[in-house]
Amino acid sequence: MNKHTILSILISLAIGTSVFSQKEEKQDSIMLKKLFDASLLNGKSYEWLEYLSNEIGSRLSGSLGAEKAVQYTKEQLEALGLDKVWLQPVMVPRWTRGAKEYAYIETSPGNTTTTNICALGGSVATNSLGLKAQVVEVKDFEELKALGEEKIKGKIVFFNRPMQANLIWTGAAYGGAVNQRYSGAKEAAKYGAVGVIVRSMTTRQDDYPHTGVMSYGDTPKDKQIPACAISTNGANYLSSTLKLQPDLLFYFKQSCKTHPDVKSYNVIGEIKGSTYPDKIMVVGGHLDSWDLGDGSQDDGAGVVQSMEVLRLFKLLNYKPKHTIRVVLFMNEENGSRGAKKYADEAKLKNENHIFALESDAGGFTPRGFSFDCDNKNFNQILSWKPLFKPYLIHYFEKGGSGADVSKLKKDSGIVLAGLRPDSQRYFDYHHTAIDTMDAVNKRELELGAFTMASLVYLIDKYGVQ
Amino acid sequence: MNKHTILSILISLAIGTSVFSQKEEKQDSIMLKKLFDASLLNGKSYEWLEYLSNEIGSRLSGSLGAEKAVQYTKEQLEALGLDKVWLQPVMVPRWTRGAKEYAYIETSPGNTTTTNICALGGSVATNSLGLKAQVVEVKDFEELKALGEEKIKGKIVFFNRPMQANLIWTGAAYGGAVNQRYSGAKEAAKYGAVGVIVRSMTTRQDDYPHTGVMSYGDTPKDKQIPACAISTNGANYLSSTLKLQPDLLFYFKQSCKTHPDVKSYNVIGEIKGSTYPDKIMVVGGHLDSWDLGDGSQDDGAGVVQSMEVLRLFKLLNYKPKHTIRVVLFMNEENGSRGAKKYADEAKLKNENHIFALESDAGGFTPRGFSFDCDNKNFNQILSWKPLFKPYLIHYFEKGGSGADVSKLKKDSGIVLAGLRPDSQRYFDYHHTAIDTMDAVNKRELELGAFTMASLVYLIDKYGVQ
Repeated sequence: MNKHTILSILISLAIGTSVFSQKEEKQDSIMLKKLFDASLLNGKSYEWLEYLSNEIGSRLSGSLGAEKAVQYTKEQLEALGLDKVWLQPVMVPRWTRGAKEYAYIETSPGNTTTTNICALGGSVATNSLGLKAQVVEVKDFEELKALGEEKIKGKIVFFNRPMQANLIWTGAAYGGAVNQRYSGAKEAAKYGAVGVIVRSMTTRQDDYPHTGVMSYGDTPKDKQIPACAISTNGANYLSSTLKLQPDLLFYFKQSCKTHPDVKSYNVIGEIKGSTYPDKIMVVGGHLDSWDLGDGSQDDGAGVVQSMEVLRLFKLLNYKPKHTIRVVLFMNEENGSRGAKKYADEAKLKNENHIFALESDAGGFTPRGFSFDCDNKNFNQILSWKPLFKPYLIHYFEKGGSGADVSKLKKDSGIVLAGLRPDSQRYFDYHHTAIDTMDAVNKRELELGAFTMASLVYLIDKYGVQ
Repeated sequence: MNKHTILSILISLAIGTSVFSQKEEKQDSIMLKKLFDASLLNGKSYEWLEYLSNEIGSRLSGSLGAEKAVQYTKEQLEALGLDKVWLQPVMVPRWTRGAKEYAYIETSPGNTTTTNICALGGSVATNSLGLKAQVVEVKDFEELKALGEEKIKGKIVFFNRPMQANLIWTGAAYGGAVNQRYSGAKEAAKYGAVGVIVRSMTTRQDDYPHTGVMSYGDTPKDKQIPACAISTNGANYLSSTLKLQPDLLFYFKQSCKTHPDVKSYNVIGEIKGSTYPDKIMVVGGHLDSWDLGDGSQDDGAGVVQSMEVLRLFKLLNYKPKHTIRVVLFMNEENGSRGAKKYADEAKLKNENHIFALESDAGGFTPRGFSFDCDNKNFNQILSWKPLFKPYLIHYFEKGGSGADVSKLKKDSGIVLAGLRPDSQRYFDYHHTAIDTMDAVNKRELELGAFTMASLVYLIDKYGVQ
C-alpha cells in the first residue's frame, strides 16, 4: 500500500467511527451542558470557599485552622449524602511563624529603611535580637559558588533572580526561579553565609512578600541559617541601593519555629461505583494553606471544586460506574505527607486507582488539563475535545498532573491529570497575605468545577485503557 | 474518482502546501515570539494605562477628562515617531451626572432603607425634590405591555430581568438583558410610568450600580421619565421587599442633564505602508469612558493596547507593507459619533480600508478574535491558528467585530475583527465606580497587545483577499 491508500483507509475508519459515535457524542454533549448549567446556576463551590476563607481562614498544617477545615469539609461532604465519608489520619509537620517579621536596610548608623519580609516556611528564627550583616546579591547557585567562602562568609546572601515574564504559563516561570527559595539557605550555608533573603516568587511589582517551603537538606542543625522572602519592590530597592552602597547592612528578625509532628487528616468522601466499585477515580485538592492569607486560591479553590464535582453528580442523579472519591489532601505545602499517606495506604490495601485529577493552580478561568498517561488514553481524551469547545476549554496536553495525585503514579492503567486554569494572575496571590476571597471570581471558580466534573464524567463513562 | 481518492488528493495537496510554506511559517513564528517578548518584557501599555486611569481618570464625552486624554494620547503617539499623528474633530453629546444620586425604599412613613443607584447615561433628572412613587416589577416589555396603563400609570417601573449566568461569553448575557436599560424608559413611558429603575447589567451580586447609555427614542420631551440603575444587591432587596409589601414607595433623586453638543476629537496616528501606502489597516479602541470609575477596562485597556501595537512595530523596526493606523475613537459610549465621523471621512476621501481590529472587551487574558469577513479571508486566518497556539490563543470564530470599527463595513475587501479576551470578569467592572486600574492585570493587558500585534502583522504580510 502507498501512503495515500493508508491515509484513505484511516480516514474511512475515522468516518465510520464518527458516524457510529454520533449518538454517544450527543448524549455527552447534553450531560456537559447539564453540568455547566448546574455549576453556574446552582453551584455551591463559592459558598463553601467563603466559609473556608472568611470563617476559617489560613490552614497551615498542624494549625487550628487546618483542624477546623478538616471538620468543616467532612461535615459538608456528609451532608451531600455520599456513600462514605471518612478521615485518614496522617502525621504532619508543624511550623509556626511567631511574631510578625521585621527588617530594615541600614545605609549608615541610624539611617534605616524598613522593608517587607516574611520567614520562609521551615526556616529557623534569627536570634532574639535579630541578625544584621552585609549583603551579597547573587542570581543563582553558580554565582554563589564562584564568589565562594571568601566573599560570602559572615554575610547575608540575597537571591534576586526574577521569575521570567516572557513565559505564557507562569508556573513555568515559577519553576525556573523557585530553587532560590527552596535550597538557597542550604547552598549559602555551605560558604558560611549567616542568613538568606530571597526575592518573592512573582512577576508582579508590589509590596507583598511570598512565603513558601524551603529545606535545609542535610545541613547540620548548627549550620542552619534563617531565610526570608522580600517583596519584589523591596528586592528592587535593596538591589539598587546595594549598587550605590555595597557595604550597607541588612537587619531582620524572625521568631519562627519547627515543632514536633502532630496528627492531622486527609478528608475523603466517595460515591460507590455501580459497575466497577473496585476501580477508583480520585478528584482532589489540598486542604492546608500557607498562613499569611486565607489560602483562597491556593488551594481553597481546588478543595471546593473537588467537592463540587461529587455534589454535581448527586444533584443530577448521575450514578457513576466507577467509585469516585474526593480527597482533600493535608500538608501539600510543606511535606506532602497527606498525599504520601493516601498513596501508601492505597498500595497497602491493593486499591485499583484508574484516574486521579488535581486542582491546585487556582480558581481562575479553566483552559483545560495536562495529563500524565500513555498515548492510548491520551488519544481517547483528545477525541473529547469537541465536547469541551463550546465552553472554551481547549488545552489538552501531556505534562505533569499535580503534587498530590502524582504520588499515585504507576506504570500503566492510570490517567493522572491536573486542571490548568488561566495562570496569569496566580502568582499575584500565591503564598501571600492577599490570597483572600476577593481574589476569587465566582464564575471562574464555577467554570473550573464544571470542567473537572466533565472530565470525570467522560473517564467514568468510557473507562481507562 | 471515489471519495477516498479525492481525499487522498486533497491530503497530498495539503502536505505539498505545508512543505512549501514551512519557511514562511518559521519566519512568522519567530516574529510572533519577538512581539511576545517585547510586549511582556518591554511593554508600555500598562504605564500608559496608569496615566490614563490615575492621572486623568474618567473620560465621558465632552468632559475635561476626555479632552485631557485626547492631548495625552496625541503626545504619546507623537513621541513614538510615527509618520503622522493628527486629531479628527467631531461634535459629541455632553451629558453630566450632577450631584450624586440618592434613593431609598420606604415601607411606611419614616421607615426607609437607602439603596445604591446611579442615573443612566442620557436620562433626564427628577425634579429637584426627587420622585416618590409605588413600584411595579417586570421582567420584560411583554410583561409591561400585559400590565398596561391601568397598572403602570403614575408608578415607577422596575426592570429586574437578570443577566443569564449560564452563558460562557458574558457579552452574550449582556446582550440578552440590556434592552431593559436602553429602552426601558421609552417603553414604560408609553403606559404612563413616572420613572424607571433597571437592574444593573452584571451577574455579580454586589452593591455597585452600573450606568450605561439609554435612549428615549422619539418620546416627546414632556413624556421623558428619569431612569436609574440599581445595584444587583439592591435589586434583590427591592424585589423581595415588594413581595412582602407591594405598595412600598421608592424615592430617587438625580440631577443629570443633557447639554448642547461640544467639539471633541478622534486621535489618529499612522505608519505609512512601504508597499501599499494606500491600503489602510486600523487598530483601535475608544478613548471616552463612563464617568463613575476610571474606564480602565472600558476602554482604557483597548486604547493602550492599540497604541502598543504601533509601538511594538517601531521597537522591532518592523516596516509594514500597508499603512497601519491607530484610531482612538471618541464617544463610543453614548453616541458613537467618533466612529461615524471616521467612517464618513474615510468614504469621503475614498480611502481603502482593508482591515480594522478593535479592542473593547477589557484587558483580560486574550482568547482570540471574532471576525466579520468572507470565507476566503476567514480560511486564510484559520491557517494561522498554529502560530498562536504556543500563546494559548485558540478562539477564531466568525461573529461581530466591535461597535467602532464595524462602521467601516463594506461588501468585500475588508476584514473586521474584535479582540476576544476572557469575559468572565468584564461585567464585574463594566460602567461602574470600580472600573479602576487595580481591576487590570499587567500580564493580561500585555498579552492582549501582543495578540493584536500578531494578527496585524500577519494580515499586513499576507494581505486581504
